[in-house]
Amino acid sequence: MALDYPNFAFEILHRDPDSRARVGRLSTPHGTIETPNYIFCGTKGAIKNLSPRQMREAKTDIILGNTYHLMIQPGAELVAEMGGLHEFNRWDGPMMTDSGGFQIFAMGHGSVADEIKGRNKSRVKSLMDISEEGARFKSYWNGEDLMLTPEKSIDVQRKLGADLIYQFDECTAYHVDRAYTEESMHRSHRWGDRSLAEFERGHDGRQALYGIVQGGVYNDLRLESCAWTKDRPFFGTAIGGCLGGSTEEFYEITGWCMPQIHQDRPVHLLGIGAIPDIFNCVRMGIDTFDCVSPTRIARHGWALAKGVPGNRINLRNARYRNDPEPLDGESDLPASRDFSRAYIHHLLKVGELLALQIVAQHNVSVINRLMREVRAAVRAGTLDSLEKEWLGD
Amino acid sequence: MALDYPNFAFEILHRDPDSRARVGRLSTPHGTIETPNYIFCGTKGAIKNLSPRQMREAKTDIILGNTYHLMIQPGAELVAEMGGLHEFNRWDGPMMTDSGGFQIFAMGHGSVADEIKGRNKSRVKSLMDISEEGARFKSYWNGEDLMLTPEKSIDVQRKLGADLIYQFDECTAYHVDRAYTEESMHRSHRWGDRSLAEFERGHDGRQALYGIVQGGVYNDLRLESCAWTKDRPFFGTAIGGCLGGSTEEFYEITGWCMPQIHQDRPVHLLGIGAIPDIFNCVRMGIDTFDCVSPTRIARHGWALAKGVPGNRINLRNARYRNDPEPLDGESDLPASRDFSRAYIHHLLKVGELLALQIVAQHNVSVINRLMREVRAAVRAGTLDSLEKEWLGD
Repeated sequence: MALDYPNFAFEILHRDPDSRARVGRLSTPHGTIETPNYIFCGTKGAIKNLSPRQMREAKTDIILGNTYHLMIQPGAELVAEMGGLHEFNRWDGPMMTDSGGFQIFAMGHGSVADEIKGRNKSRVKSLMDISEEGARFKSYWNGEDLMLTPEKSIDVQRKLGADLIYQFDECTAYHVDRAYTEESMHRSHRWGDRSLAEFERGHDGRQALYGIVQGGVYNDLRLESCAWTKDRPFFGTAIGGCLGGSTEEFYEITGWCMPQIHQDRPVHLLGIGAIPDIFNCVRMGIDTFDCVSPTRIARHGWALAKGVPGNRINLRNARYRNDPEPLDGESDLPASRDFSRAYIHHLLKVGELLALQIVAQHNVSVINRLMREVRAAVRAGTLDSLEKEWLGD
Repeated sequence: MALDYPNFAFEILHRDPDSRARVGRLSTPHGTIETPNYIFCGTKGAIKNLSPRQMREAKTDIILGNTYHLMIQPGAELVAEMGGLHEFNRWDGPMMTDSGGFQIFAMGHGSVADEIKGRNKSRVKSLMDISEEGARFKSYWNGEDLMLTPEKSIDVQRKLGADLIYQFDECTAYHVDRAYTEESMHRSHRWGDRSLAEFERGHDGRQALYGIVQGGVYNDLRLESCAWTKDRPFFGTAIGGCLGGSTEEFYEITGWCMPQIHQDRPVHLLGIGAIPDIFNCVRMGIDTFDCVSPTRIARHGWALAKGVPGNRINLRNARYRNDPEPLDGESDLPASRDFSRAYIHHLLKVGELLALQIVAQHNVSVINRLMREVRAAVRAGTLDSLEKEWLGD
């Protein structure tokens, strides 16, 4: 099978001589972004608390939507009837959707974060059955029996109409053994081939498909999965599945994959975007990240900050009660520059939702600034000193 | 006692020959607004879900803060330490604060809406004691015993630093009898004189004081209270207290007061702002309105609309599930113009708070448009036909 992506391009503009880090240019029908970059999660068709204009004001380049949530509510047919997800949520820039698999399996086994981080908490399980055909699960919305197959995932993603879309795969959990991981990976490869076939059937040039590297924590399986994606006509590659139970293991596994995958394709790291991880993974050659964290932590009153321990401050803390300083006096974003920490502390304390909007926009802006600085540092060969500035070393 | 307000002015620019309606210009140290106008409620120091920039974008002229809520949290001293309420919440235009009395008494007896509308529901009562000195009540925040007196109310309002401030008064409930209403009114008058004395002691020209007409549903008491406010050096007059149990009674009581109060001062109608009421009360000579409704109904998914029954549509209604129309395609406000009703319906359905921001800004914008059109219609003598356009006659 051969596939062309005439309306898409990925060019590598600069390579770091001391690492695998690279600066690239990723072109889509909805615009061109520079990489490394960060894809913000518009889970249910909206970034939490922020409009597309507020995302633009925070200098956002690209967002994503979750196939799983959108197929459940409002449904892919409705989004298609409304002109697609770009028209529906009014984001006119590049957009990605995932395959839906991650949520089915993560919510099926327990919480997402618990699973990929190896914690074992009990939770309502919605996954009912995995077969060669696909995955059967219960809708958290109305209890309805739903089925996601490679063909259905591609069909839903086509109706949503994002620029960058994903093959259907199973995201294995930390607690599964090698035999299951291997079996699951081979099924995900077969699901990937069916995703490619379905993608090709409807291919009109508006979308580009990513393949996903599985294989859990096992070196030989990861290498086999790298080879599998490399041999398929995907536009991009994603590193998915279980990345171990510790940061060290996650870096080790990612490090195995990066030299083995297709070197000319953009590489996305699924669901990961903590600031220290961004520095480490950019060095390994990752081009794009996504994580719900910037807007999720905003809802708990955490504001991201450069050069402070943990890269964030807790605005609920009593120390900010009378702090007249803004979140970032040097920012050109009004949300970061205009309100005192004392005011945001007050808003959080009395439950005014305006706080979430202010802090979410600030956090998005901080991450976008980080990514701009990372790209400049890769070009200048100064990533190590930038990392020290950010991590507050 | 004589008081000057050198930094304030109220000029009447146009009078309707067929009613008491008038167009005025109200000048404050933070800017000049035209009247009739609408004062949006920033209850706890923020308009629900909207930043000052979003309020400006919706063409807002003036907002208010609630003394009662702000003295409880974060406290007037903290707001003063942060430079006053304008600096704290970053609204740089004209601002009003109330005296705090309304919430003490309304929350003291039951819910605000129940009381002024004559319904009798039980609720936790926080009011502990009313004496000549003032009102003692329990903080809903931490159970602390608090006292509000005329002197304390003026002191708190001075620390908050709004342009337009209010005498301390008791807002009587619908269920009280004539004897109590009379006793309370006379005490409110004495509190008004103490408010004036305290205001004069600290008067530095930055603030202007409104007196409040009480007297409940009793004609002679209302006239006595009108005369009392007229004889005092207040900058403005407010119609307060219980305005009866029906719209007819409310219009009747307001109608008694309007010819009797000081004719050259701006007149505020406390806590009322439904669209039919605005037309009727502008005809009676009311200059400013305030009500929490535009942002409160937004939180329940109601969008204001010109010319439809009830002047609002319920975006949660299933009929909007696939409605591609925006809230108002002719608006220059992106929130009103850019999102389909189907998208907002979806956001409300899945609990995305972005919906509240969109609908709140739309509603504020609709009310500001209404007030612009009302001013133009008073000037043109076309208020009756404008009312028909709005109410969907």
